[in-house]
Amino acid sequence: MAMTQDTREKLIDSGLRLLHGRGFNACGIQDITADAGVPKGSFYHHFASKEAFALEVLERYWQALRIHLKSLRGSSVAPEERLRRYFALLAEAIARGKFEKGCMIGNFGAELSDQSPTVRERLAIMMAEWTRAIESCVREAQDAGTLRSGLDPKAVAGFLANSWEGAILRSKIDKTKAAFNHFSSVVFAGAFNS
Amino acid sequence: MAMTQDTREKLIDSGLRLLHGRGFNACGIQDITADAGVPKGSFYHHFASKEAFALEVLERYWQALRIHLKSLRGSSVAPEERLRRYFALLAEAIARGKFEKGCMIGNFGAELSDQSPTVRERLAIMMAEWTRAIESCVREAQDAGTLRSGLDPKAVAGFLANSWEGAILRSKIDKTKAAFNHFSSVVFAGAFNS
Repeated sequence: MAMTQDTREKLIDSGLRLLHGRGFNACGIQDITADAGVPKGSFYHHFASKEAFALEVLERYWQALRIHLKSLRGSSVAPEERLRRYFALLAEAIARGKFEKGCMIGNFGAELSDQSPTVRERLAIMMAEWTRAIESCVREAQDAGTLRSGLDPKAVAGFLANSWEGAILRSKIDKTKAAFNHFSSVVFAGAFNS
Repeated sequence: MAMTQDTREKLIDSGLRLLHGRGFNACGIQDITADAGVPKGSFYHHFASKEAFALEVLERYWQALRIHLKSLRGSSVAPEERLRRYFALLAEAIARGKFEKGCMIGNFGAELSDQSPTVRERLAIMMAEWTRAIESCVREAQDAGTLRSGLDPKAVAGFLANSWEGAILRSKIDKTKAAFNHFSSVVFAGAFNS
């Protein structure tokens, strides 16, 4: 049992690295079992399909990201500053990774939305949860008077989440942090301030 | 010679449909030759590799998109209105396509940026050209006093281009036009107006 759990964890760890870096379709099950150092045959012992495996890997990726959403919640830090620090943290992680890989949610969205309805639905739920966390912070910023009050917080939150995915994508193409600088200079030093 | 050109064009047409819809790695050369109704062997007569083929298909996709950049240039229409109409046109095309496929530039960016340096470099050049076209319009809008003058037009243009890619990606995940509505309500009815 311990061995079995171990094999499963090794497969998920390899999946996190390989599916994030290469994408779903460029990565075979054999690549994953080889990377994990486990027998080829063990894959289907743990996962019903490559799609089911990808969903588990995606879930693990999302759980790691979700931890940071806590920093968006009410605290002594002003809401706009919380948003700024949150996005700065994400940008720094991507810069440390040399602008490779991008966001697994965005990557899977681009690659699998029309291939796997199950993955697409899960991605939509993740994006919605992320957007709601941003929206709470946006509402607080409006209440605090640091965000222009004429803007619909739901629209602003959706726009920010989507724009951030776009910035990650551009940084993956350009291999520079310009997209993050543009994001923060427009969002935090101009357009949205009251 | 006429037959040869015909085969090449058929392959590119099929590539435009299949590589856009399924992505690069999910689509085999045999899928493309079958869709084009040409002999399997003809592919390598026309293209050195699948990567070289993808670059030609991408180029064709980009040339079709570039035509619309003309509408961003100086005209009797006010610059902000030109930008609004331009993005509305792109959103309508995606809604007509039922939010499938997304943008080939964004898709290839997500899938191939770390797999093919040649594709990545070409995507970076396309994104830069697109961003410059938006920047000209942003500068005009600032000169006309309809865009807040404190914002750096280069940053705004990069931000808008990237945010648009993010909106397309979200619409591909959500299969609704919400992301485009959020984009236009924030960009054109709020944040950027002077």
